Amino acid sequence: MRALRNQWYCAALSKEIGSAPLARIFLEEPVVLYRKADGTAVALEDRCCHRRAPLSRGKIEGDNLRCGYHGLLYAPDGRAIWAPGQDRLPPGAQVRSYPLCEKHGWTWIWMGDPALANPDTAPEFHWYDATGWAGYGGCLPVAANYLLLVDNLLDLSHLAFLHINTIGAGDDTNPQLTWERGPNFLRGLRMARNLSPSVRQIAQGDNFRTDSTKVMTFTPPANVVIEITTLEAGKQADDPTNRVNRKLVVLDSMTPETETSCHYFWASCRNFRTDDAALNAQAYKSTIAAFNEDKDMLEAEQRVIALDPSAPQIDLVGDAGGLQARRLVERLLAAESGARAAAE
Amino acid sequence: MRALRNQWYCAALSKEIGSAPLARIFLEEPVVLYRKADGTAVALEDRCCHRRAPLSRGKIEGDNLRCGYHGLLYAPDGRAIWAPGQDRLPPGAQVRSYPLCEKHGWTWIWMGDPALANPDTAPEFHWYDATGWAGYGGCLPVAANYLLLVDNLLDLSHLAFLHINTIGAGDDTNPQLTWERGPNFLRGLRMARNLSPSVRQIAQGDNFRTDSTKVMTFTPPANVVIEITTLEAGKQADDPTNRVNRKLVVLDSMTPETETSCHYFWASCRNFRTDDAALNAQAYKSTIAAFNEDKDMLEAEQRVIALDPSAPQIDLVGDAGGLQARRLVERLLAAESGARAAAE
Amino acid sequence: MRALRNQWYCAALSKEIGSAPLARIFLEEPVVLYRKADGTAVALEDRCCHRRAPLSRGKIEGDNLRCGYHGLLYAPDGRAIWAPGQDRLPPGAQVRSYPLCEKHGWTWIWMGDPALANPDTAPEFHWYDATGWAGYGGCLPVAANYLLLVDNLLDLSHLAFLHINTIGAGDDTNPQLTWERGPNFLRGLRMARNLSPSVRQIAQGDNFRTDSTKVMTFTPPANVVIEITTLEAGKQADDPTNRVNRKLVVLDSMTPETETSCHYFWASCRNFRTDDAALNAQAYKSTIAAFNEDKDMLEAEQRVIALDPSAPQIDLVGDAGGLQARRLVERLLAAESGARAAAE
Repeated sequence: MRALRNQWYCAALSKEIGSAPLARIFLEEPVVLYRKADGTAVALEDRCCHRRAPLSRGKIEGDNLRCGYHGLLYAPDGRAIWAPGQDRLPPGAQVRSYPLCEKHGWTWIWMGDPALANPDTAPEFHWYDATGWAGYGGCLPVAANYLLLVDNLLDLSHLAFLHINTIGAGDDTNPQLTWERGPNFLRGLRMARNLSPSVRQIAQGDNFRTDSTKVMTFTPPANVVIEITTLEAGKQADDPTNRVNRKLVVLDSMTPETETSCHYFWASCRNFRTDDAALNAQAYKSTIAAFNEDKDMLEAEQRVIALDPSAPQIDLVGDAGGLQARRLVERLLAAESGARAAAE
Repeated sequence: MRALRNQWYCAALSKEIGSAPLARIFLEEPVVLYRKADGTAVALEDRCCHRRAPLSRGKIEGDNLRCGYHGLLYAPDGRAIWAPGQDRLPPGAQVRSYPLCEKHGWTWIWMGDPALANPDTAPEFHWYDATGWAGYGGCLPVAANYLLLVDNLLDLSHLAFLHINTIGAGDDTNPQLTWERGPNFLRGLRMARNLSPSVRQIAQGDNFRTDSTKVMTFTPPANVVIEITTLEAGKQADDPTNRVNRKLVVLDSMTPETETSCHYFWASCRNFRTDDAALNAQAYKSTIAAFNEDKDMLEAEQRVIALDPSAPQIDLVGDAGGLQARRLVERLLAAESGARAAAE
Repeated sequence: MRALRNQWYCAALSKEIGSAPLARIFLEEPVVLYRKADGTAVALEDRCCHRRAPLSRGKIEGDNLRCGYHGLLYAPDGRAIWAPGQDRLPPGAQVRSYPLCEKHGWTWIWMGDPALANPDTAPEFHWYDATGWAGYGGCLPVAANYLLLVDNLLDLSHLAFLHINTIGAGDDTNPQLTWERGPNFLRGLRMARNLSPSVRQIAQGDNFRTDSTKVMTFTPPANVVIEITTLEAGKQADDPTNRVNRKLVVLDSMTPETETSCHYFWASCRNFRTDDAALNAQAYKSTIAAFNEDKDMLEAEQRVIALDPSAPQIDLVGDAGGLQARRLVERLLAAESGARAAAE
């Protein structure tokens, strides 16, 4: 499929990788994730080199993974180190091993040339496990191209409509919006003033108008960090009568599964009432509800696109971010295919 | 897909179009149906011009329809009249609007050139809401090409077999059958005498033999009206000892969804015991049961066709109607493509 | 699809063919199976020559099969002998009839040239109904190419892994294995000594080590017979202290449905404790459990293959049988296509 390869993609939230093999398809390749005895995460091709059984149906033995069909045993580097009925293994007795990198509770995988994998360049979603912050997250399978989710997250004008029953404010239709473009990122500043409280804010007991500042940062291949600052409408953070001063950071990373499906990794992190279990439960519920509103709409959009992929569409002011993100991805795709051509 | 475009197709029974948007696919195009404040039905392309979300996931606001994703508001003519974040809308900010025409509780849509849509040519299924008649109907999704249903309705020799447990008489295998061909219609007269009572007739208390006269009228693209007159076997309508003199009119209209699926709109209208609620309930149940027998068989037929579309088939006497209907459709298809070629 | 045609394929266990038509797809052709009044099994094309309805939705009338759509009546030779509304049937009013052959409770079908069908060449699975033997079997639909099952059955190194919770011994990883090749068969001898008891053996009360000798015979197109002799480890059959001397014969025949699905016919026959109902029930349960382990793994394998059919694979010692079986099938395929070319 058409997607960047020499990039870090999210493979899993680290908490998802545990004592049982975890099977996922990334960029149309089957991958199995597990942990070694010392806790290090491993990613192997999820396809036995012998008869192509998925290794994820096997079991972890110490640092190794054993195929559940004929018992081939694989070391974390992908080499088969045991097979039934023979002492020496033939050439080719190995599966691909993928570079992984864990940071702040997020696990990143490198689907391209392993020699180019530099852990320093993997995203730092530090809010997720930072002191003083409460973060929770998950993985939502979405039957839509991953870039539809990028469009969605960079054009928050949908908050007032798609999320009107969860996290959106009905009058959030006229924000100030500016974009800054860097060599390898894109950042938007979205300021909306005097917003009516959302269903979620009312449930949290914040039944008053607010000003909301959102900083949205896109980095390739498909990461979007949204930092949200909320103040009482018209007040400064240091005004003693200001009733709310909060930061919420939404972390998003989309990994293509196929052309028309992806893994949507998300987390919500906040720096207030972090020990409030009732708020945690309620926020988790409303966040999941909102992300499922996105999922449902994007899957519907994907089905409509499939009916006629060439149907025309128009762009609006709010699409500036999504369009620039797509251009950035295209530029990198061209560079990757140029590099491949030069290497050949 | 291959189907006539400059024709009125049934879009819905009028009762189906109400306060919530109704999504249907006609000729592989997504369409949303709703009503304006004054009750007029509207049909728009069910694909937002912005990001191709289905408008049917939005909501009706007065005469307009608002997209549920980013809130674009569409007038009944398909023009977008509001979009988030900008005062002026770009060129192309519109979706297709389809001519509709409501008659006698049936709503017809024109999928072709709007300039050619003449409401006078839409079918008149007047029995459905006529005084002195009781009509009920519905829409059945059928995973089969719409012409398989035309074949089915014009060859009633299947009554004695497929519908033996509902509305068919086991000895209805030797009717008199004649066909009349008009410039734009096809009419069959089918007379069957001394039929044993069907399961349905027995349930209605009519446990005696009857003569049945059926007039089947096909009009393009895919309408079939079947007028059924039932008398006691061997008796005249005005014979005082004749125990039954009834008219039942079955209205059928098939609208292609894809090459291998369609919407089957049907209604059953009768001029007797129209206020008999128990009979209504029982007749509705047995009619639905019979149409589901058709649906199941045609979907099975479609699956067998898919296994080998080129498998040979033979035609029987009873196929005369279906074959002529297909020829009429083919002739009109050739005329449409000729007209298109001349216009280009 | 690519499969041998002039071969006997298993159509059903004979007990499956009874008073209702049985629909199956073999080599992508729809087939209906039923029995005549005298019990003889019949196989017809499951596609009415009139409108391609599946005849399996009809009903058996004496020796004939009546289509459930318009009532065409078919004789066991495939000729239509009645149709609605006409006394003479047009040319072509017939469906294909397939040669069948029943032996020992297994029913075999010939999908190729009927003139070449010789019942003497159909497999003899005589253990299934032999005196002194208890046999039970069934048909498992498997969404995988039929040759994956041949691979599976000829490489029993998977017993120790895939079937470790049912019929496999965990230390059965180092058998002696030899293959004998005949003009039209392939036979393997697999001897494994001093095996720990399997879950199934323990449940049967045989909690001691055994020696197991397996003779696996493959014949085209896809039959595998596995004869298993079990003795107490290190003892001879006639040693009075030997606690077990048993024969179990597993009969397997795979019939392609499509390129990626097949019917897996299997039976398990044993010559001991044949009247032990509790053992029958328990053995049936563990056999079904084991075969479902195969089904699940092979369907997973097929899905992985579909992701990238050209992914490389290696062969191990245990694959000798499967590879030779595939070569034998390929040789016969080439012969068939050569014969067809010569005939044309």
